[in-house]
Amino acid sequence: MDIKNEKITGRDVNFAQWYTDVCKKAELMDYSSTKGFIIYRPYGYAIWEEIQKYLDNKFKECGHENVYMPLVIPESLFNKEKAHVKGFAPETLIATIGGKEEIVDKLIIRPTSECVFTDFYSRIISSYRDLPKLYNQWCSVVRWEKTTRPFLRGSEFLWQEGHTMHASEKEAQEETTRMLEIYYKMGQELLAIPFMKGQKSEKEKFAGAISTYSIEALMHDGKALQCGTSHYFGQGFSKAFNVKYLDKDNQTKFPYQTSWGVSTRLIGALIMVHGDDNGLVLPPMVAPIQVVIVPIKGDQKIVQDKVKLYEESLKKNGVRVKVDNTDHTPGWKFAEWEMKGVPLRLEVGPKDIEKGLVMLAKRNDMKKLQVKESDVVNEVKKTLKAIQDEMYEHALKHLKANIKEAHSLDEIKKIVDQGGYAKAIWCGEEECENKVKELTTATLRCIGTEEVKSGTCAICGKKGKYVAYFAKAY
Amino acid sequence: MDIKNEKITGRDVNFAQWYTDVCKKAELMDYSSTKGFIIYRPYGYAIWEEIQKYLDNKFKECGHENVYMPLVIPESLFNKEKAHVKGFAPETLIATIGGKEEIVDKLIIRPTSECVFTDFYSRIISSYRDLPKLYNQWCSVVRWEKTTRPFLRGSEFLWQEGHTMHASEKEAQEETTRMLEIYYKMGQELLAIPFMKGQKSEKEKFAGAISTYSIEALMHDGKALQCGTSHYFGQGFSKAFNVKYLDKDNQTKFPYQTSWGVSTRLIGALIMVHGDDNGLVLPPMVAPIQVVIVPIKGDQKIVQDKVKLYEESLKKNGVRVKVDNTDHTPGWKFAEWEMKGVPLRLEVGPKDIEKGLVMLAKRNDMKKLQVKESDVVNEVKKTLKAIQDEMYEHALKHLKANIKEAHSLDEIKKIVDQGGYAKAIWCGEEECENKVKELTTATLRCIGTEEVKSGTCAICGKKGKYVAYFAKAY
Repeated sequence: MDIKNEKITGRDVNFAQWYTDVCKKAELMDYSSTKGFIIYRPYGYAIWEEIQKYLDNKFKECGHENVYMPLVIPESLFNKEKAHVKGFAPETLIATIGGKEEIVDKLIIRPTSECVFTDFYSRIISSYRDLPKLYNQWCSVVRWEKTTRPFLRGSEFLWQEGHTMHASEKEAQEETTRMLEIYYKMGQELLAIPFMKGQKSEKEKFAGAISTYSIEALMHDGKALQCGTSHYFGQGFSKAFNVKYLDKDNQTKFPYQTSWGVSTRLIGALIMVHGDDNGLVLPPMVAPIQVVIVPIKGDQKIVQDKVKLYEESLKKNGVRVKVDNTDHTPGWKFAEWEMKGVPLRLEVGPKDIEKGLVMLAKRNDMKKLQVKESDVVNEVKKTLKAIQDEMYEHALKHLKANIKEAHSLDEIKKIVDQGGYAKAIWCGEEECENKVKELTTATLRCIGTEEVKSGTCAICGKKGKYVAYFAKAY
Repeated sequence: MDIKNEKITGRDVNFAQWYTDVCKKAELMDYSSTKGFIIYRPYGYAIWEEIQKYLDNKFKECGHENVYMPLVIPESLFNKEKAHVKGFAPETLIATIGGKEEIVDKLIIRPTSECVFTDFYSRIISSYRDLPKLYNQWCSVVRWEKTTRPFLRGSEFLWQEGHTMHASEKEAQEETTRMLEIYYKMGQELLAIPFMKGQKSEKEKFAGAISTYSIEALMHDGKALQCGTSHYFGQGFSKAFNVKYLDKDNQTKFPYQTSWGVSTRLIGALIMVHGDDNGLVLPPMVAPIQVVIVPIKGDQKIVQDKVKLYEESLKKNGVRVKVDNTDHTPGWKFAEWEMKGVPLRLEVGPKDIEKGLVMLAKRNDMKKLQVKESDVVNEVKKTLKAIQDEMYEHALKHLKANIKEAHSLDEIKKIVDQGGYAKAIWCGEEECENKVKELTTATLRCIGTEEVKSGTCAICGKKGKYVAYFAKAY
């Protein structure tokens, strides 16, 4: 039972092992009996529910509607958009037997749903009046992976996928940007993660897209993690699936399409951006439990009365609170809830009660502060807000300190080997991108929005076109 | 575009066709390109979201936690509980190819998740301190069906499945009953459907369960629909999967298990209990849109100002409201929102505005009432409450009128042929149950809680043991 209180691997001793330890010991996930498929345990799933709540509201505010599409895609349908097939075919899981009989048109377990959405759109869009269509779906997807890591890369993960259709190119491009901005803001408001955002290169873009934009986060070990993408498809799928509508001018046209998604990979980002040697550290806004109350000498009535009082008044004020009345020692409980990254701990003991005080312990910097009993609700709310801000600032400082300018391939290598982003002027040629990858294993994470007026490509020395951010990535 | 306003098949002309018409014309669902798999369109999915919100709260209130388990189950794992395998094997969808390679231990797409939950429990339960475990999952399941009907029987449907483990038989049986009661109450509070509830016979129980309880609803055409089940497993799966714990008395024991679930079939029940010749009729509590505001002469500023005022004040009061400002005629809009079953319509026109009045139109009985402008929020809230109550009473009356006592096989046949439940004393033997089915196609829907002190089996004439409810069913 007390096994969970064993120390985990040090974060700077072995980052990969530390990560797995946190995933398991904080009870976020567990391995299942199906290789590559994980179990989302209650605490991990509750984080996902907070992310869902936040995003679902944002999506609906700008007019999106939720739907549910079939889990399986007939191979014949999947094969309609060639670039898309090429990108996904190697990692598909395929069902071939249904009700003990062989299935003729084999069924692909959805790796993503562009095909089924576009196929459906071809049947329900016929007039300009039917546009835009702004659909989103919460579901799981399957991608057959050889090597997997909890939340980062798995054969099945949970996500949302938005799929929209628009009358004009401009409107579709605006949608692509709007959704990227919602993800970016979620970093600031919910996850306390400062994302980088920008366009992907041709080499790194989504199979079938004209352009892909992404948000990228920098982990504690200096590696980047792609945390969400927003794609502009133009009319590629529309034409392949024959989605047509009659416009106001009586002309038949193909609509313009987008898709965008984030997944449970965000939980991996939360762990690797904020976690420390004591385990997970959760920003208050996304924490399933924001405050844990630990009674000291909990067998005393005076203590339990006070605990109940705090619990009720905090709940009434919208704080997500939990009381730990198990029979473990206070020290064991402290370690347990620190491991689970609960932002704030309230210690309620008879000595403090006598003095009319309560002890607050912050998870992010482990600082303790004594507050007056009568102020507890306000102090808790104020401190939660402060923790959220401090965690964002802390992560932002780490990000800023790890973006370094590079003017040659050697400098790119030096920077990405240390960890962090190498910011370099780039000619736009895939050849140069490939050279970086071969030499350093780093990839072009995103293209900055900065305009390049002068300067030459850090790799080939030709005329510079873009500012590119290179980093090693998960 | 105006195709939706075509009349649907009369409910009493062809009930089956009427049902499909409502599903399609109310835009609840559509067929996909994968045979047997439907698309849950925004309006249908929004009803499911309301059901989810209601149940998720109830589950969490009594301590249940959400998790997410793998979509696929290795055949070797699935085969561990024999009765369970026998029940589900004929209708499984099986994946055999992953990443272009053949999978040795083939993967069954989950038809239900007893196996994966119990397998997981075997790894995380070791002490009495780990009990109870109260997990629930929202997901889709796949059952390969030859003949399918929207929401009633499909190759994929959405549901929740609760899986719990308990230290004692008593506690597990109480859980089975508690969850059945939650479903039953949902009928009263949310769906305005009076359910029958009771135990299933040995013949009709779930594959692998010791006992199965169900809620059953009576459709307008007199057929029954099973709307949810709650199973008590005893230690069957525990033993098959070797789930053991050390009890307080230092003895190693097997825990007792339950599972329970409802699905998107409930949408089918809503349609067939409440719908009429004009389409869907939704009870206000579960309606995604509770009030639709239709402007009459909407081009007048005075009308639009008033519409905006009503919309805002209703929203502020927690009413789910939608304004229809499309360029259709008011008559077209009336028909459209009637088809979608919106409980209440507000008609806002210049003549009424002059008189300080608003017109309310109730969907359930098509009655109209004029109310004073200043009372509109209160009147709307009062009327929504009244509609919910009226719809429940209406369905209850229909149910009561269609439960008839039968004292012989002939009487059972006569009653179930007319539609409704034949209530009969039964000896408890499967032979008699089979006789009813052979002669009438009706099945034993549930066993009543009534004690049988005297009387003989309506089928064989031997000593009566139970009160059984027979009906033809979907």
